[in-house]
Amino acid sequence: MNSLNKGVCAARGFLAGSGHAGIKHGSSKDDVALIVSTTPCSAAGVFTRNKVQADCVKLSRKHLENHKAQGIIVNSGNANAAAIRGMENALRQAQAGAKALDVDLEDMVVASTGVIGQELPVDKIEAIADTIQLDENGSKAAATAIMTTDTKMKEASTSFEVDGITCYIGGICKGSGMIHPNMGTMLCYITTDCAITGDMLQKALSQAVDTTFNCVSVDQDTSTNDMCVVLANGQAGNPEITEEGAAYDTFYAALHAVMESLAIQIAADGEGASRLVTVKVHGAIDDANAMVLAKSVVTSSLVKAAMFGADANCGRILCALGYSGADFDPDTVSVSYCSKEGEILVCDKGLGLAFDEDLAARILLCDAVTIDIDLHQKEGKAVCWGCDLTYEYVKINGEYRT
Amino acid sequence: MNSLNKGVCAARGFLAGSGHAGIKHGSSKDDVALIVSTTPCSAAGVFTRNKVQADCVKLSRKHLENHKAQGIIVNSGNANAAAIRGMENALRQAQAGAKALDVDLEDMVVASTGVIGQELPVDKIEAIADTIQLDENGSKAAATAIMTTDTKMKEASTSFEVDGITCYIGGICKGSGMIHPNMGTMLCYITTDCAITGDMLQKALSQAVDTTFNCVSVDQDTSTNDMCVVLANGQAGNPEITEEGAAYDTFYAALHAVMESLAIQIAADGEGASRLVTVKVHGAIDDANAMVLAKSVVTSSLVKAAMFGADANCGRILCALGYSGADFDPDTVSVSYCSKEGEILVCDKGLGLAFDEDLAARILLCDAVTIDIDLHQKEGKAVCWGCDLTYEYVKINGEYRT
Repeated sequence: MNSLNKGVCAARGFLAGSGHAGIKHGSSKDDVALIVSTTPCSAAGVFTRNKVQADCVKLSRKHLENHKAQGIIVNSGNANAAAIRGMENALRQAQAGAKALDVDLEDMVVASTGVIGQELPVDKIEAIADTIQLDENGSKAAATAIMTTDTKMKEASTSFEVDGITCYIGGICKGSGMIHPNMGTMLCYITTDCAITGDMLQKALSQAVDTTFNCVSVDQDTSTNDMCVVLANGQAGNPEITEEGAAYDTFYAALHAVMESLAIQIAADGEGASRLVTVKVHGAIDDANAMVLAKSVVTSSLVKAAMFGADANCGRILCALGYSGADFDPDTVSVSYCSKEGEILVCDKGLGLAFDEDLAARILLCDAVTIDIDLHQKEGKAVCWGCDLTYEYVKINGEYRT
Repeated sequence: MNSLNKGVCAARGFLAGSGHAGIKHGSSKDDVALIVSTTPCSAAGVFTRNKVQADCVKLSRKHLENHKAQGIIVNSGNANAAAIRGMENALRQAQAGAKALDVDLEDMVVASTGVIGQELPVDKIEAIADTIQLDENGSKAAATAIMTTDTKMKEASTSFEVDGITCYIGGICKGSGMIHPNMGTMLCYITTDCAITGDMLQKALSQAVDTTFNCVSVDQDTSTNDMCVVLANGQAGNPEITEEGAAYDTFYAALHAVMESLAIQIAADGEGASRLVTVKVHGAIDDANAMVLAKSVVTSSLVKAAMFGADANCGRILCALGYSGADFDPDTVSVSYCSKEGEILVCDKGLGLAFDEDLAARILLCDAVTIDIDLHQKEGKAVCWGCDLTYEYVKINGEYRT
């Protein structure tokens, strides 16, 4: 991917910035982010499928019904979920953003992330929203302001050509715990200057999310506040994409690349993670079965703990495949571990093999490890991303609220 | 439950014992258990639904097809799963048991638990099987010999009356990690002197497992080796139970009580657990939805970590209810935490409440905590048992094989 290092401001006409409202007691980091386009945008969003949804999710979904938006306001430190004045405060937060960005209220996307079940101190956001400085280099500030237990800010961007015209696309996201996106994910904001209708933008987003954010799992907990929103302001000047075809395919590939990069960044920065774990399944009877198998392995607590311990035992992998519910033949499975240190086969035809323990340990102690599972049946394949289960995950989530 | 403290030997005519084969390198504890009835038994079993199944599971299922059995041999330290000579070794293990117990080979149940993917050193079992001393006080020895990462041996027993005749029923089980039984569970052996047909025994076992072992989760990993087997030798002398009715109901209640007690012991001794977590859901639209909701909460890594941290936040509970897939109204949920220290309401009508943090901490720091969830809709209810997620779980499973 051609990275421009400007994240959500890589595309023409998008500005971002952040400010400190002091929402979480004792935290001095910026906790409010603003993103705006200088002109109106086509817009699309995907939201959590959790039945318990934060009021900011409900409000943003409503504002995006017409596939139009121009500004985004996000706070960290409080999720504004299961809170008594939730909708009133989400509306006040959106109004504060609309005023600061000089955008219609109905064109504002509003989001919150943090602790659930406490009232959002929206007055603190109102007090600082219009003091936030916005500019074309504001992506990193915005990406940092939306972090909670994340240890790294996450951005990605690329360029692509449509009808001979160079377009840009980029985004930021956050997410570290309560991550098992069953729709889009956590919070993710992507901007592009490509001209594309809202309907086609929604189609591309909804499709891309299935093989990117929906393939990441940190802890199987689908949050109440997940959302992924794309704004397209058309400032590249390409003929507007209104249907499928070569231009749509090019746009889709770029959108997918940005989303995949952000998804992998989230997996690698999973709460307490010491290494990124990629699970590749191939040789399955179809892609759907491959995905079920890959997700079962990447979410297994025992597999995740084994990855933490650099334990190359194949038993937990076979076990996770077996209880996944997918259709496969246990007697043709092979399992390898791979990393920059090499590759080692630990299971063939469903049976455990003796292997070089020293090589296995070297492979598994890397920052990024791939579990490669070949079912030797047909052509179905899938990839998922996760991380190991560590003491730090327990510590972070045992002590999070206090 | 009227506990007789004799576990799997509480019923007339059952003997048990254990011996040391040295299956796991460096371990000095007994690792082979034998259980036998002095007379032939009706028998029933439920087995793992994992698609990857150990050969001992396949062999025991075959031996139980006629609902007859008399002896049981179990080893710990090696699961005899995904191993090249798996079936050959399972058969040799069953033969060793049959010879030691003087029982027909087809009447032997054989089981293994431990590491997956390595060859079972069955010669070590053959070498010591017929040296094992069996007696009526052997339950604790057998219960200890089948332990792996368990920290406590688990047994339960009770008595009941059928047609004026006192019958006894009791059992032992093991299970600490890789526990999210989707059938029966881990290893569990129950004996009774009640006379009951194999068909009725199977019916009672299959029904009781749904509200006992299938409601326990330590880590959502359904093992390759799970089995729960009941032997009934009829030595109580009651008229054989051949159909539903008062006698069957009495037997079922006793079987269920023994299985529930063993299930709770497993949850409390989950790998690394510092406390037992009981999730009670009521007021759901039906029992099936209540069960889905309860299981979603009891398996959530974030809820489990919060229980470790004695964090009374309701957000993770609401979140886990929301992504469960069950049908419920998020706006009528109330959540309380209860223990011997008292009870505290933390969520009402789907909204977080302010509460006494000191009282909440006292309640949550107990060895046994109940999360009580009232949906205020209809009469559906369910109970599940689990444990907290601790550093020790990660340590145990990061270092298990080495």
